[in-house]
Amino acid sequence: MPERVLAAGVDLGGTKIYSLVADADGNVLADDRRPTQAAEGVNAVIDRIVASVRQALDEANVDTGEIVGLGISTPGPCDPQRGVVTEAPNLGWSDVPLVDLVSKKLGVPALLENDAAAAAYGEMKFGAGRGKRHILYITLGTGIGGGIIIDGQIYRGASGAAGEVGHLVLEPDGVACNCGARGCLEALASGPAIAREAAAAVTAGRSDLMAKLAAGKELTAELVLEAAQQGDPAAKDVIERAGRYLGLGLVGLLNVFNPEALILGGGLIGLGDLYLGPAFEAARECGFEQVLADVTMTTAKLGGRSGALGAAALMIDRSTT
Amino acid sequence: MPERVLAAGVDLGGTKIYSLVADADGNVLADDRRPTQAAEGVNAVIDRIVASVRQALDEANVDTGEIVGLGISTPGPCDPQRGVVTEAPNLGWSDVPLVDLVSKKLGVPALLENDAAAAAYGEMKFGAGRGKRHILYITLGTGIGGGIIIDGQIYRGASGAAGEVGHLVLEPDGVACNCGARGCLEALASGPAIAREAAAAVTAGRSDLMAKLAAGKELTAELVLEAAQQGDPAAKDVIERAGRYLGLGLVGLLNVFNPEALILGGGLIGLGDLYLGPAFEAARECGFEQVLADVTMTTAKLGGRSGALGAAALMIDRSTT
Repeated sequence: MPERVLAAGVDLGGTKIYSLVADADGNVLADDRRPTQAAEGVNAVIDRIVASVRQALDEANVDTGEIVGLGISTPGPCDPQRGVVTEAPNLGWSDVPLVDLVSKKLGVPALLENDAAAAAYGEMKFGAGRGKRHILYITLGTGIGGGIIIDGQIYRGASGAAGEVGHLVLEPDGVACNCGARGCLEALASGPAIAREAAAAVTAGRSDLMAKLAAGKELTAELVLEAAQQGDPAAKDVIERAGRYLGLGLVGLLNVFNPEALILGGGLIGLGDLYLGPAFEAARECGFEQVLADVTMTTAKLGGRSGALGAAALMIDRSTT
Repeated sequence: MPERVLAAGVDLGGTKIYSLVADADGNVLADDRRPTQAAEGVNAVIDRIVASVRQALDEANVDTGEIVGLGISTPGPCDPQRGVVTEAPNLGWSDVPLVDLVSKKLGVPALLENDAAAAAYGEMKFGAGRGKRHILYITLGTGIGGGIIIDGQIYRGASGAAGEVGHLVLEPDGVACNCGARGCLEALASGPAIAREAAAAVTAGRSDLMAKLAAGKELTAELVLEAAQQGDPAAKDVIERAGRYLGLGLVGLLNVFNPEALILGGGLIGLGDLYLGPAFEAARECGFEQVLADVTMTTAKLGGRSGALGAAALMIDRSTT
């Protein structure tokens, strides 16, 4: 039996660290999950990453010497060339040489990649994008981001900032976006956008149910979904409108990229057909015929593992070429 | 003196055929321009392409045996792999095996490329994109299209349909676009969009000057510019608004691609600062800081030659790799 090529992968998030050990076919031998506790500072988080990877390796009964290295999926802008997290607002980090720091402590080669790009790569290798060369992966949650795969490789642009699909302008006079523009896709179709519109409906007295569900707690997209599932028309309308905006963003992206696969991931996927239905419908209604004929539109298949698996796969692919 | 590598290039348009003979440095030895007369049918147009290339070769005193081949820039969707013009509405063509037909008659290898992609390639090799690897080229005229260069290569997508930047949705409830959607960039910032808004201003009695200038002829973007230059506020407003929409489209494209160069080409470039000023301003106002720091935003440098020069360069690059 030929020896398997193994790598570790970590998905570093604002609230949790998720580590795994995987082989070149995407089989997960073991994994570990623990809180990030970013408030304790860079060094504490790095110790926790290393401990998490060691725990996964122990469980898999794999020595550090048996893995080709560690791939790290990081939130926000990073520089994969230098291995530096340039800016991670939800970690409070800027210009952290993460690859050097982790690699030294763990004693194996490491690389890092933006989380959306890593997830896109993971879905291409083992998930919804298997066998495709041109893939657009969009993550839908608190923010809306994207990972672009061109000819089987992650496209990073001039400085690694490519893929910011959440800032297509869809309503020039619309609601202000965090980025400074108005009416961006993210300001119209993200989780906070759904919560904001739902809150407006509650304030306007258009939903007693949402008012009741949200009493004493924060009104989230999940609560809006709950209300919609219980038949609340205002809640249903808010989610459908967000989905429709998502679809109008997808139209532009599909026409520009002519991808083989469009994969939607991230927490908002949990909103299901109420959100994704209008999105895919708008895309099918307005996209070019040829572009629609070429593309498979689907949701991510690897769930919470896509980033860590993609990062591990990147490490394996780098080590074997 | 080492022998120069030479190629011919043709830009096949709806109204004119433009041919040239060039070397690997983009020096044009000779060129020829003649009407397309598409109404006479495919064979007549092919004879005219061949005659035009022969004329340019004669003038350059170059034999067909001395060129590596002919690159053809064609309007609309095509299949560069098979050398087929799949759809060219302004030629009345569909599924024309142009490469085979021209290559046989001229006795040299040939290739074809979509005109926006060829122009993008030309600008990368010899014009405003020299030395850049990730380039977004946008052609502004009757339609709005794009050529995408990634890592020095034309990006075509799944089936060659990539680059349709004119169909980013900017106003979901806006004016109907030819593509079937509403409020696309092309419906808001193209030549016909400017003419339409100007005509509305005339109808509403908001511009006596435009009414006078357009009396008895078609109201075009050029006439609107003339009126604006003579101080007509409505004309000025129409062009500036179109430019602003262009800029909002650019914001999304810049944030998604993080290109090293954004190059604007096509006839509407002639509208100058009145149109391009608000466009670049909106882009600078709303784009991400890093993305703006990375990109050079400029107009095309090769003018009407970019498509033919790009096609010739593609032929040379294919023959030498």
